[in-house]
Amino acid sequence: MLSTIALRGASIVGGESLAGAGDTFYGFDPATGGRLDPEYHCASLDDLNRAAALAEEAFTTYGKLPGREKARSLRAIAAGIEAIVPELVERAHRETALPEARLKGESARTINQLRLFAQVVEEGSWVNARIDPAQPARTPLPRSDIRSMMRPLGPVAVFGASNFPLAFSVAGGDTAAAFAAGNPVLVKAHHAHPGTSEMVGQAIARAVKECGLPSGVFALLFGPGSQIGTALVDHPNVKAVGFTGSLAGGKALMERAAARPEPIPCFMEMSSVNPVFVLPEALRTRGAQIAGGLFGSFTLGVGQFCTKPGLVFLPRNADADALVAELKTQVEKAAVSPMLTEGIAKSYSSGVAARQAHGAVETLARAGVSDGAGSSCAVPVVMQIEGRDLLRDPKLAGEVFGPSTLVIRYENRDELMALARSLEGQLTATLHGTEADLAAFAGLVTVLERKAGRLIVNGFPTGVEVCHAMVHGGPYPATSDSRATSVGTYSIYRFVRPVCYQDFPQPALPDELKDENPLGIWRLVDGNWTREAVPAHS
Amino acid sequence: MLSTIALRGASIVGGESLAGAGDTFYGFDPATGGRLDPEYHCASLDDLNRAAALAEEAFTTYGKLPGREKARSLRAIAAGIEAIVPELVERAHRETALPEARLKGESARTINQLRLFAQVVEEGSWVNARIDPAQPARTPLPRSDIRSMMRPLGPVAVFGASNFPLAFSVAGGDTAAAFAAGNPVLVKAHHAHPGTSEMVGQAIARAVKECGLPSGVFALLFGPGSQIGTALVDHPNVKAVGFTGSLAGGKALMERAAARPEPIPCFMEMSSVNPVFVLPEALRTRGAQIAGGLFGSFTLGVGQFCTKPGLVFLPRNADADALVAELKTQVEKAAVSPMLTEGIAKSYSSGVAARQAHGAVETLARAGVSDGAGSSCAVPVVMQIEGRDLLRDPKLAGEVFGPSTLVIRYENRDELMALARSLEGQLTATLHGTEADLAAFAGLVTVLERKAGRLIVNGFPTGVEVCHAMVHGGPYPATSDSRATSVGTYSIYRFVRPVCYQDFPQPALPDELKDENPLGIWRLVDGNWTREAVPAHS
Repeated sequence: MLSTIALRGASIVGGESLAGAGDTFYGFDPATGGRLDPEYHCASLDDLNRAAALAEEAFTTYGKLPGREKARSLRAIAAGIEAIVPELVERAHRETALPEARLKGESARTINQLRLFAQVVEEGSWVNARIDPAQPARTPLPRSDIRSMMRPLGPVAVFGASNFPLAFSVAGGDTAAAFAAGNPVLVKAHHAHPGTSEMVGQAIARAVKECGLPSGVFALLFGPGSQIGTALVDHPNVKAVGFTGSLAGGKALMERAAARPEPIPCFMEMSSVNPVFVLPEALRTRGAQIAGGLFGSFTLGVGQFCTKPGLVFLPRNADADALVAELKTQVEKAAVSPMLTEGIAKSYSSGVAARQAHGAVETLARAGVSDGAGSSCAVPVVMQIEGRDLLRDPKLAGEVFGPSTLVIRYENRDELMALARSLEGQLTATLHGTEADLAAFAGLVTVLERKAGRLIVNGFPTGVEVCHAMVHGGPYPATSDSRATSVGTYSIYRFVRPVCYQDFPQPALPDELKDENPLGIWRLVDGNWTREAVPAHS
Repeated sequence: MLSTIALRGASIVGGESLAGAGDTFYGFDPATGGRLDPEYHCASLDDLNRAAALAEEAFTTYGKLPGREKARSLRAIAAGIEAIVPELVERAHRETALPEARLKGESARTINQLRLFAQVVEEGSWVNARIDPAQPARTPLPRSDIRSMMRPLGPVAVFGASNFPLAFSVAGGDTAAAFAAGNPVLVKAHHAHPGTSEMVGQAIARAVKECGLPSGVFALLFGPGSQIGTALVDHPNVKAVGFTGSLAGGKALMERAAARPEPIPCFMEMSSVNPVFVLPEALRTRGAQIAGGLFGSFTLGVGQFCTKPGLVFLPRNADADALVAELKTQVEKAAVSPMLTEGIAKSYSSGVAARQAHGAVETLARAGVSDGAGSSCAVPVVMQIEGRDLLRDPKLAGEVFGPSTLVIRYENRDELMALARSLEGQLTATLHGTEADLAAFAGLVTVLERKAGRLIVNGFPTGVEVCHAMVHGGPYPATSDSRATSVGTYSIYRFVRPVCYQDFPQPALPDELKDENPLGIWRLVDGNWTREAVPAHS
């Protein structure tokens, strides 16, 4: 199918595609190495400044839009994306080599998360309205009337991710959360999928226009991270940053954000090796099945997930030997597939080679490479190390982005606990175990609760549900701020701050805080959650 | 009255006062300049490392303590402080020269906020439990069972403030919130009130022992910020920082926390000038009354509040002239009182002198100095500047800590809006106005909502209510993170992070997340707030 959407190769500012100027680049098909039209033009710093000025201006109205109107605009964006799914999937497939089925699923997720946020802001209780009514007769001092609720921060800079061209990119989770909270969004497109980014950007710009919103609520900017990315984080109008990408990239932007005259909150999702622990009874009874699940999880999407299980902790016993044998069998016959970009494939190869070069690391199995495999292809590999060797050199547990995992064999429970304690912060940690296993290893669970944002029992970390309870976050270096999530509705709280109104007359209060509760939301009144009106003042 | 509490002049680690060693210092009476016994010994880095190791060890149990047991320990601390209020007030009065009535009030606030947090954690809904039950029949993919709740971060470093020897110090708001969340606390005592700090520290240590908690949940460390303070922020066991103090001090610690191998969240409350806007109808009808309130607010506690109104915006008209005349009269006959330390008094004098040296600043009035005023005394001063001059040199609006305020006279509404927009982040902004004024100046309110954590109508910013809806926070440089408050029950969220449990069997879940809701707390089940049990799985 040929795309019917006209790509302009241009950034979008003020609702319009910009005329071409400055440096240019192309998208590439990682499966063929072929260049993809059209030529893309980088935004200039003037373009960025104009986008930031428009965003600031738009915030004055968009930041105070009632929930139901924000919901309408989120749904319009969702519908706009839904209308172009076939073209989007086609272009994204060419730009990323990700399978069409995966991209269809990712489209659905992207659309659904916009709609989930629409529900949340339409219902309205998310604002965390708190009301402590006046107590004029209190002694020794009367109490003022104190009310507070969440307010948006202001324009948010969002950095599209390489590995999710839809769900963590132009209209991805960061954008959806920032919009839902009431913030304009300035997206820096990822250079690896410019066409996909532009299609989604156009859909957002159309929805913005259709809903009568100020055009400055959204801008899409193409350009190098070292120029457009840093200028976005530096811009005084930008009040928060959402980022999904590498540790090096995220760290550089964190430092930049902290060095501003006005430091701003940063939400970087960066690096995770997602340890898996197979406990004794589960190992004995389900070892082969777990091996299959593990193989599927660490090779899914050519291992290009932040949640890819990169460490597997197994004891030194025959049950574990059997699991490892099964894992080897599967890896040996695994497919060799193209990664998102040639650069990512090279990083993967060198990461694997560096690990293999370590004297303590044994390569258990690698997939056979067929003749036609291009330079973007990644070879699935499973390696192994003794627990004591990893304890001696914990850097070996660092992230290798791609279809590889490292089996760690431990001698006894003390060594296992020492290994768990030596882990850095993670997005996820997985336990395979029966109820008896989990009870016997409760101490391990306690350690992992401090290490990861999400603990999984008898499953695999890839596949992140978009829902209210999801936490896609974790201690550094998994993210820059363990108190946040970048997936699920709780992620809206990254982009808001509480504002308190003391002794405001009723007409001057936001609807969320008025006595009669016109929006019917849940509020904490004098410390109790209720949807009732505040009783008439005494 | 002579204090009956034995002061040891020592840090408290592991529940015990440390033997003296290393550098020493004394408390001083700012009213007399006299040295106060006993001699205080600084903690060594070894002491700090031991405290941090004990805190980490204590966290394993304290971090999982049920809410009702945390409530019991918070109440034991409150009772322990309540039992020594007379001695505390006496010592604090000598160390700070703050009036006894104020210190009694501050004691009550300190005790009450511990009890308020006890209520919150006993009730339990604060953990933000979220449950999205499994949907095994969902297509195309079944949904896992996803549950999440807040978990404590780990040991928290708290820096006692100079200006609140009780409510923002050893058992102050940061400590109460961190304990309530489930974190051990390491307090760096402020050198300006060591005896008060030690008395409270001993009370906490006794309560910790009485409740059978591990002694490492609390430590009190004396020593210079440049040594003990930075070492605390650097320590790998420390997972968050709470600080109330100067912009320079807070900024230095923020940079330190960001430069750690594992950066940690920092909550610095630093600098605010708390602008006051008097709108036309209020000015006409209540000008003299507002002048009196303002005078009371900016001289309260010798101007040593983070919420002291340091800027007063008035038009160039006769109503405002009358308000200014009244303000001058009050300032001229104001008392000259000692500040917390001689150093703070010197900073105040030089801050006032620097402002007065500016050609555009007019000194409207200053209090007369009596002969007996010591070197710690501060002279109340009111100055004035034209709006256009302040717009030319916005640095003039910086904080001057002490009993001084700056009146800004603006020509028209455009100039007023420009002035409001030029403000940095603030803890508070105050409007005096009728309902009609507020409606006419809604645009000003919108600007101030972005500038401050708390907006006050027809009141004064000093006096911060400890309640559920309070926000004592605001954009930088008021605080390091506008998304937080350091007063009120919402402040507990600074010291927690969400942790997600996927497909956990019921017995392995925390009580807060079990189907039957054994704690009876409010939970977000499938997106709806409820206290009901989760229906049996389909």
